[in-house]
Amino acid sequence: MPWITVQLLAGRTVEQKKELVAALTRETSRVCGCGTDAVQIVIEDVQKDNWGIGGILASEKFPGPPSPYGSGDPRFKTQT
Amino acid sequence: MPWITVQLLAGRTVEQKKELVAALTRETSRVCGCGTDAVQIVIEDVQKDNWGIGGILASEKFPGPPSPYGSGDPRFKTQT
Amino acid sequence: MPWITVQLLAGRTVEQKKELVAALTRETSRVCGCGTDAVQIVIEDVQKDNWGIGGILASEKFPGPPSPYGSGDPRFKTQT
Amino acid sequence: MPWITVQLLAGRTVEQKKELVAALTRETSRVCGCGTDAVQIVIEDVQKDNWGIGGILASEKFPGPPSPYGSGDPRFKTQT
Amino acid sequence: MPWITVQLLAGRTVEQKKELVAALTRETSRVCGCGTDAVQIVIEDVQKDNWGIGGILASEKFPGPPSPYGSGDPRFKTQT
Amino acid sequence: MPWITVQLLAGRTVEQKKELVAALTRETSRVCGCGTDAVQIVIEDVQKDNWGIGGILASEKFPGPPSPYGSGDPRFKTQT
Repeated sequence: MPWITVQLLAGRTVEQKKELVAALTRETSRVCGCGTDAVQIVIEDVQKDNWGIGGILASEKFPGPPSPYGSGDPRFKTQT
Repeated sequence: MPWITVQLLAGRTVEQKKELVAALTRETSRVCGCGTDAVQIVIEDVQKDNWGIGGILASEKFPGPPSPYGSGDPRFKTQT
Repeated sequence: MPWITVQLLAGRTVEQKKELVAALTRETSRVCGCGTDAVQIVIEDVQKDNWGIGGILASEKFPGPPSPYGSGDPRFKTQT
Repeated sequence: MPWITVQLLAGRTVEQKKELVAALTRETSRVCGCGTDAVQIVIEDVQKDNWGIGGILASEKFPGPPSPYGSGDPRFKTQT
Repeated sequence: MPWITVQLLAGRTVEQKKELVAALTRETSRVCGCGTDAVQIVIEDVQKDNWGIGGILASEKFPGPPSPYGSGDPRFKTQT
Repeated sequence: MPWITVQLLAGRTVEQKKELVAALTRETSRVCGCGTDAVQIVIEDVQKDNWGIGGILASEKFPGPPSPYGSGDPRFKTQT
């Protein structure tokens, strides 16, 4: 403990996951005062067909490439 | 999305939770390229009687005050 | 199975929970073609101090009574 | 928030998922008095080898095609 | 890892939780071939008003004392 | 109920899953006094790229074959 679960829209690279795990662990350790060794994180890659937002599947709401991240589309900045 | 769940040993202050939520949100937004508005976090306060580590309840393994964090005991630095 | 977990801001009445469980079970059974007996639901009441949205605790973002639902404040209609 | 997780035996079509997400969102919004935009849902497709019921894997208990739903077998109506 | 979450109807004693954590850890370690130190377990006590089975709250379905376990009522043997 | 979720590093065989589900169900039923039929278990296979321990992905920390279990490497006995 602490045990962290991150549900993300699928499509992140291994490099992004490395950086995410490093950053979340460092910040959790700093704020909670526990050792970094105590922090474990599981990332769950959620497919667009398995994510509903406002009653609509992400695959309908955000058609196109697997992951909308970094698309520059301002909707994604606030919606995803 | 992203949706983050943090299971923590109960005993953190509201100030620590504020700081934790701010830091995890900032880092997730930065690494994933999504807006901070898209990041939601739920903290689950786990009581010592409800956490087992290595087959032993935390209330047995770490008797004493509710939260061992910041105790200076090196065991906590790596175990909790 | 199906097994459904609902994380909600704390403050709902038992009557609302009864209605929610009945409705989600009925719809899941209808869409998935399984019996209602097969559907189980767990509601997790999340305190405002344990919910972060956009990097800010709900207790800061929505100060006041425990639950903002039904407040008529349009922010709650979209944010909570 | 509300945040809903649905663990389902794998094998549902995208059409079923669309309908499920729409129905659960509508009912949750209606009962809780929050906007539909606030409801997010994640569907987790559970493989038969990863689901145990009564101590037996679903792949042993319900051998055959991936999903038993809609099979007309009354066991599925109550067991799955 | 392994990380185990157990959702239980509230009402178990600390002695039962000790025994549960010890048994699940021992069996997981034995079957998976990992050390017992690697196994962590979180128990979530679910109140009767927060558990829906077949579309009905457990507080309606099983009225009476907080926990039906060990009641000798055969319904509980199969339903809870 | 009880409902058990087991997050495991991916790579276990179906035989191990059968044995794990049987053992966890038997022990939970025995300790909690509920019927085995009431116990449901979901196993989540976590890929090495999706598991962070101490701020490092398991794929970096434990490079090599998919699953380190049974490798005889004492690190795995305590770390995984």
